[in-house]
Amino acid sequence: MNSPLEEICAEVLKRVAPSVSEREQVLSLAKRLVEKVREEAKERGVEAEIRVEGSVAKNTWLRDCPEIDIFMRVPTTMPREAFGTVCLEIAKKATEGYEQIERFAEHPYLEAIVDNVWVNVVPCYRVKRGKWVSATDRTPFHTDYVKPILDEQRGGEVRLLKRFMKGVGVYGAEIKVGGFSGYLCELLVLNYGSFVGVLRSAGDWKERTVIDYEGHYERIDDAKKLFEEPFVMVDPVDKRRNVAAAVRKERLDEFVAASRAFLKAPDLKFFYPPEVEPLEPTELVNKINTRGSTIVFISFEGIPAVPDVLWGQLYRSQRSVRKLIQQHDFTVLRDDVWSNEKSLNTFIFEVENRFLPNMKRHLGPPLRKKQECEKFLRKHVGADSTVSGPRIEEGRWVVEVKRKHTDVVNLLNEKLGDGGACVGVAEVVSKAVADSMEVLVNDEALKLYSANPDFAKFLTEYLEGKPRWLA
Amino acid sequence: MNSPLEEICAEVLKRVAPSVSEREQVLSLAKRLVEKVREEAKERGVEAEIRVEGSVAKNTWLRDCPEIDIFMRVPTTMPREAFGTVCLEIAKKATEGYEQIERFAEHPYLEAIVDNVWVNVVPCYRVKRGKWVSATDRTPFHTDYVKPILDEQRGGEVRLLKRFMKGVGVYGAEIKVGGFSGYLCELLVLNYGSFVGVLRSAGDWKERTVIDYEGHYERIDDAKKLFEEPFVMVDPVDKRRNVAAAVRKERLDEFVAASRAFLKAPDLKFFYPPEVEPLEPTELVNKINTRGSTIVFISFEGIPAVPDVLWGQLYRSQRSVRKLIQQHDFTVLRDDVWSNEKSLNTFIFEVENRFLPNMKRHLGPPLRKKQECEKFLRKHVGADSTVSGPRIEEGRWVVEVKRKHTDVVNLLNEKLGDGGACVGVAEVVSKAVADSMEVLVNDEALKLYSANPDFAKFLTEYLEGKPRWLA
Repeated sequence: MNSPLEEICAEVLKRVAPSVSEREQVLSLAKRLVEKVREEAKERGVEAEIRVEGSVAKNTWLRDCPEIDIFMRVPTTMPREAFGTVCLEIAKKATEGYEQIERFAEHPYLEAIVDNVWVNVVPCYRVKRGKWVSATDRTPFHTDYVKPILDEQRGGEVRLLKRFMKGVGVYGAEIKVGGFSGYLCELLVLNYGSFVGVLRSAGDWKERTVIDYEGHYERIDDAKKLFEEPFVMVDPVDKRRNVAAAVRKERLDEFVAASRAFLKAPDLKFFYPPEVEPLEPTELVNKINTRGSTIVFISFEGIPAVPDVLWGQLYRSQRSVRKLIQQHDFTVLRDDVWSNEKSLNTFIFEVENRFLPNMKRHLGPPLRKKQECEKFLRKHVGADSTVSGPRIEEGRWVVEVKRKHTDVVNLLNEKLGDGGACVGVAEVVSKAVADSMEVLVNDEALKLYSANPDFAKFLTEYLEGKPRWLA
Repeated sequence: MNSPLEEICAEVLKRVAPSVSEREQVLSLAKRLVEKVREEAKERGVEAEIRVEGSVAKNTWLRDCPEIDIFMRVPTTMPREAFGTVCLEIAKKATEGYEQIERFAEHPYLEAIVDNVWVNVVPCYRVKRGKWVSATDRTPFHTDYVKPILDEQRGGEVRLLKRFMKGVGVYGAEIKVGGFSGYLCELLVLNYGSFVGVLRSAGDWKERTVIDYEGHYERIDDAKKLFEEPFVMVDPVDKRRNVAAAVRKERLDEFVAASRAFLKAPDLKFFYPPEVEPLEPTELVNKINTRGSTIVFISFEGIPAVPDVLWGQLYRSQRSVRKLIQQHDFTVLRDDVWSNEKSLNTFIFEVENRFLPNMKRHLGPPLRKKQECEKFLRKHVGADSTVSGPRIEEGRWVVEVKRKHTDVVNLLNEKLGDGGACVGVAEVVSKAVADSMEVLVNDEALKLYSANPDFAKFLTEYLEGKPRWLA
């Protein structure tokens, strides 16, 4: 008899591993696309090597979401601009007649939806290992490295790990998530031998884990010193690159905690979490009100930026606004940000109290600093701004002065009304904020809630405030 | 022409130095009382040496408040109990016909008001220097030490210093004040030569000042190590005693600040501060409300204890209640205590907000502590007490739990209703609190304010929140 752990894994594997016919379908589509791109390149006299990369090339894609990466390796003699002109044209021509979206990461590429399969056509330079020119030049080397050493069985382990990471919300190196890439999943399975092996080790990962699978460094401490990120996987094809550079501490911690929890009580929900059921509006209002805190929603229109740029700017702006609120003495309990990546963005700041007293304590110099004390007294004794004091407390002068901002909502309206660029709101966010900001408090958010099902799910989860696998 | 400083000092000296006839009056009264006590002692067969001590003996009393200390030095063969029996009887008999109050410091003594002059009749043991038995045995040695070296001129300087210290609120070694004793003033003038000399030096006193006028210690660092108090004056008659042991840091700081301010802008108000004019009730209410904070008054009936015991217990209880409030996450902006020493006591606690959210953040273990994390999750996931979470923040589990006390007034009523002995309210205070506590908020204090002119002055000063000389 199998253990519950083995049974769950077998069940998930059945779901994530494509059948033989599905596999053939994807591979033949990939082959067709390679041919098409190759033809179009030839047509334009571009000397390019066309290859399938990524999960399809390495046989690690998830059955329900295949994504075909077609790479065009062009000579380094081609100027970078060509990625956005001739290369893009080749890609467009090759996928003519299908839905196409122009994308931009470090450089432009094309996304197309061909027979319901997502396809990326990405240019890169054909370089010698180590002589990287553009960010995607390493990808073919990754494929060539992984493909020969990842057998069918371990490909399945990778699929399990990816599905698990998706389920617990730590999959994906994009800025929004800050999690684990597919390549990183492959290397983890190679390093630890299996899906369960990865989870077992993850449960014991210490403050900073550094993995050097290829043994590029004589001593692991050398690698430790070189990289700053919370988790390090030295790239087998480039000793100076951390494959896990995108992994944020929060995602790492969540993966560690989820790994422990799953091993302790294996359950399908780690791979396939139940859909979030948004609270009924009356429930929502009730839940917000019984918290007794003040939840402030800063809502504004969409921003014309690709997701990585959008999320980078949203996160940066969130930090700036949090700082602004804290600098004005409000206690921030929690904050978060939501975006539908199109038409609407919302920051959430939950503070202890919406209002602060009209006066605030202002610490003056310690008594031993004679000159500064005199200056302090000249400024505050009998001043209009003085509410109480000055007096000496614990060896230093103290005065209570009038507080400028006693209402966090007023503070935000005042400081962000012009976009808040000067308090650190990122450029593109600032413009949208200036044009369309609306500050809502507590159950006033019902408006957004009712109009945006995705926001409703998000807010329901926010109030729940725990990972979905912690049921 | 004299400087303003000299003029002010001359003016004050005129007011504080008794005239020749006033002096003769006091001295002859003292002499008469010595005779009386001597007779009564003889009558009872008590072999006692009767002497005048204190400011009258040393010619340093303030004209408007002479206080005659008559000491009875009895042999060490007499049991301590005799201080409260036969010695007290002698004192009573000697001041028969005048108002008498039995007092108790370390041991019993008698206070009497004779011809409008306060008289203390205090027993002590006649011992060799250093062989102290009771706390007052040193007093005659202090008199004998100071008298021969403090001339008429320097006696005047002591009077100035005492008046200054009274004016700025730092005079008196009693627990209520925690300030400078008369003897300490005398030693300061001896050490620095004059009133202004004391102030000039005080303005520059560093974190811990140690004065060893008699040079008992070879190195001042030896004395520094021996004593813990913020200010040290080694007793010339007892190298192991700090004459300034009663001086609290707050009073020391205030004296330092007042000294600087007076030297910078000499003014009579330092010696004779204007009376506090209580605010009109409507002004009071307005002032409290515009602060926007919450001022909580805990009022309770009088306590049958001598002032030093009363104030000691009040201060200790104040610290305990402050801690209680802070432990429940309320932010205490300031606190204070008032007592008329008879029928009514009031604690003041000013907090930032009366109410806190219904939930509070509860920090769990860091992720690396596996066992503790499991325990934490078992306890909080889905518990009735859980409002939100648990989730991971900055490497540790966090959960929001229901807060027990969201209203500081309810908290105080609940925790102090039984007297609050188990939260650290001192014994005698606890009894009075249990019997009669009333918790008032903000302008509800109007009730106390209107009924107690002394409290009205106190609260007016509290709201002003600054030393009276800082006009």
